[in-house]
Amino acid sequence: MDELRMARTLPVEVPISGASYSAVELADENDRVWMMDQRLLPWQEAYREIRTVERVAEGIRQMVIRGAPAIGIAAAYGMVLAAAACRGDAGDYERVMKQAGDLLRQARPTAVNLGWAVDMVVGTLSQHADLGYEERIRVVAELARRIHEQDVAACKAMGKLGAERIRDGATVLTHCNAGALATGGYGTALGVIRAAREAGKAVHVLADETRPYWQGVRLTAWELHRDGISVEVITDGMAAHHFSQGEIDHVVVGSDRIARNGDVANKIGTYSVACLARMHDRPFFVAAPFSTVDLVCPTGRDIPIEQRESREVTVIGERDYAPIGVMARYPAFDVTPHDLVSAIFTERGVVDPVDERGVMALAGRMG
Amino acid sequence: MDELRMARTLPVEVPISGASYSAVELADENDRVWMMDQRLLPWQEAYREIRTVERVAEGIRQMVIRGAPAIGIAAAYGMVLAAAACRGDAGDYERVMKQAGDLLRQARPTAVNLGWAVDMVVGTLSQHADLGYEERIRVVAELARRIHEQDVAACKAMGKLGAERIRDGATVLTHCNAGALATGGYGTALGVIRAAREAGKAVHVLADETRPYWQGVRLTAWELHRDGISVEVITDGMAAHHFSQGEIDHVVVGSDRIARNGDVANKIGTYSVACLARMHDRPFFVAAPFSTVDLVCPTGRDIPIEQRESREVTVIGERDYAPIGVMARYPAFDVTPHDLVSAIFTERGVVDPVDERGVMALAGRMG
Repeated sequence: MDELRMARTLPVEVPISGASYSAVELADENDRVWMMDQRLLPWQEAYREIRTVERVAEGIRQMVIRGAPAIGIAAAYGMVLAAAACRGDAGDYERVMKQAGDLLRQARPTAVNLGWAVDMVVGTLSQHADLGYEERIRVVAELARRIHEQDVAACKAMGKLGAERIRDGATVLTHCNAGALATGGYGTALGVIRAAREAGKAVHVLADETRPYWQGVRLTAWELHRDGISVEVITDGMAAHHFSQGEIDHVVVGSDRIARNGDVANKIGTYSVACLARMHDRPFFVAAPFSTVDLVCPTGRDIPIEQRESREVTVIGERDYAPIGVMARYPAFDVTPHDLVSAIFTERGVVDPVDERGVMALAGRMG
Repeated sequence: MDELRMARTLPVEVPISGASYSAVELADENDRVWMMDQRLLPWQEAYREIRTVERVAEGIRQMVIRGAPAIGIAAAYGMVLAAAACRGDAGDYERVMKQAGDLLRQARPTAVNLGWAVDMVVGTLSQHADLGYEERIRVVAELARRIHEQDVAACKAMGKLGAERIRDGATVLTHCNAGALATGGYGTALGVIRAAREAGKAVHVLADETRPYWQGVRLTAWELHRDGISVEVITDGMAAHHFSQGEIDHVVVGSDRIARNGDVANKIGTYSVACLARMHDRPFFVAAPFSTVDLVCPTGRDIPIEQRESREVTVIGERDYAPIGVMARYPAFDVTPHDLVSAIFTERGVVDPVDERGVMALAGRMG
């Protein structure tokens, strides 16, 4: 990672989401990507300057940036850097861009938005490969920025739909971070919270700390607190207790991939929350842009679950919490079967009931 | 805490459990208690030398030692130190000992074994207060050691009963640490695992890391690995996923207090595991000495749940993982209603089905 060039405030004049911070932005000159290093939150808000598609892929793999929509946008911006690195002819260009796309796609296997964003760029290659060097960059940058803008618009649209289902005065449990930091801005699950607030409703958020990467305590708590939304943290094992005390009204989470039948892959621990919501008769909502739906994937069983390393679970700071010789498992995602999902909020509309028919009905609708 | 006197190996010749390590021991001279500082595991096995009942209470409060049976034994040994600190007459002695008992009882509110062990000593005061200084110490020390010995015997007895319900080749999920470190030795839940192994069964353990104190990754993994029992660690949010994959056969946990109707208080996160076991149709077993049963307590709703400080959740090592201004909740225990408990293993027999009738049937039986 380009360690030397870091910025403490967002180095872009006006980020696409309009917020005061952003997970990822493309420089106006189309030659650099700024990625907030989310591993440093909440201690530092710092942006890495990235100049090559290889470094973008590395940033995604190392979880400098995470969140399905955000890594999709980062990948699109990575394709801009790939275009900027190729001065060859149309044939060279198509080959370089396809290679860059493959590299990005392989960075993380579960989120479908990553491949979707890459495909959006690769799908137009034949239309602009013949253009000159500057023009090609401009075309890809325009497309990438449009992906980013559409993500923000989608978050706001699904947030508005979802907010209708949040009651005034509710306590909402969320898992992981499906917020501004996980998207182009505004957020999916946290977009629903933001929209509920904008609609004048009082909302209190309980954030699962979300081991092992601590997205809840580090990221969700950070962005909600920064935006003045009431939030408390609980450990992942506490949700059941708070359900039993009647202290949780709704669950809202994001998703990394939704199968055609409505099964939802999301950060490990999500399925646990869905089981608890069902046992305590509370609605379990998912908010995700329609690009999260993988129509090629029949059910959750067909979604590849990324397995990460033991030490990412047991090493905290400089210290290994496991005794020498003991390993931890780290499936990075789990799958919540569609019958535990009360509704899916997308920018195209709400899927409810959640099943293949409901998902396919939205697939036919315009984005 | 008496920082200066620490030992790296158990300073007692033969610990009561016969193991090579122990959570708490009374020196042969009855003038010092050795407590393993479990906050330092797995990095250091180190024993604190404690010479006053006040320091014993502090050690319990600060979780140098934890686990309901172990803190009961520590409290009994604390009473020995209280006796050793009183050279007054019978009236003085009774007053001092009752004060010491109150101090110990207040150290932590949820575990019933603490008050039970104190009561065992306080209940005999009138019988030996008239004795001389040395004799009084000897009587209390004998009683305290008997409590310790009986705990080990109880663990072995319940372990044997529980092991019959563990199938050969099983993967057993446990939460927190209900092992040798949480008891006088051998363990309650982990005693069942040890007994299953001793009965020739192959057993693999999945240990919930158990946030926020990390009992699973630090303590359960340490003692099982040390004793050659196969163990892997998962984060608290991963259990549901592994249930859904059919990778968990049984759950076995300990308990800090069992109400008369069979409701079980245990480390926060236990109720979550019980819900998941039910949803996936797997048995959820509790192992506890009968002293854990609080016959005065009609249901789980009557069990006081200790609330601890936010910073014990968010500060890991030297670092606060929550953004400034955000608080965490920390209920230290939760209650699993009896209808989610498949069976309770005690040294008096097995409660199955788990309800008031089953619990009361054992109450009438000799310990």
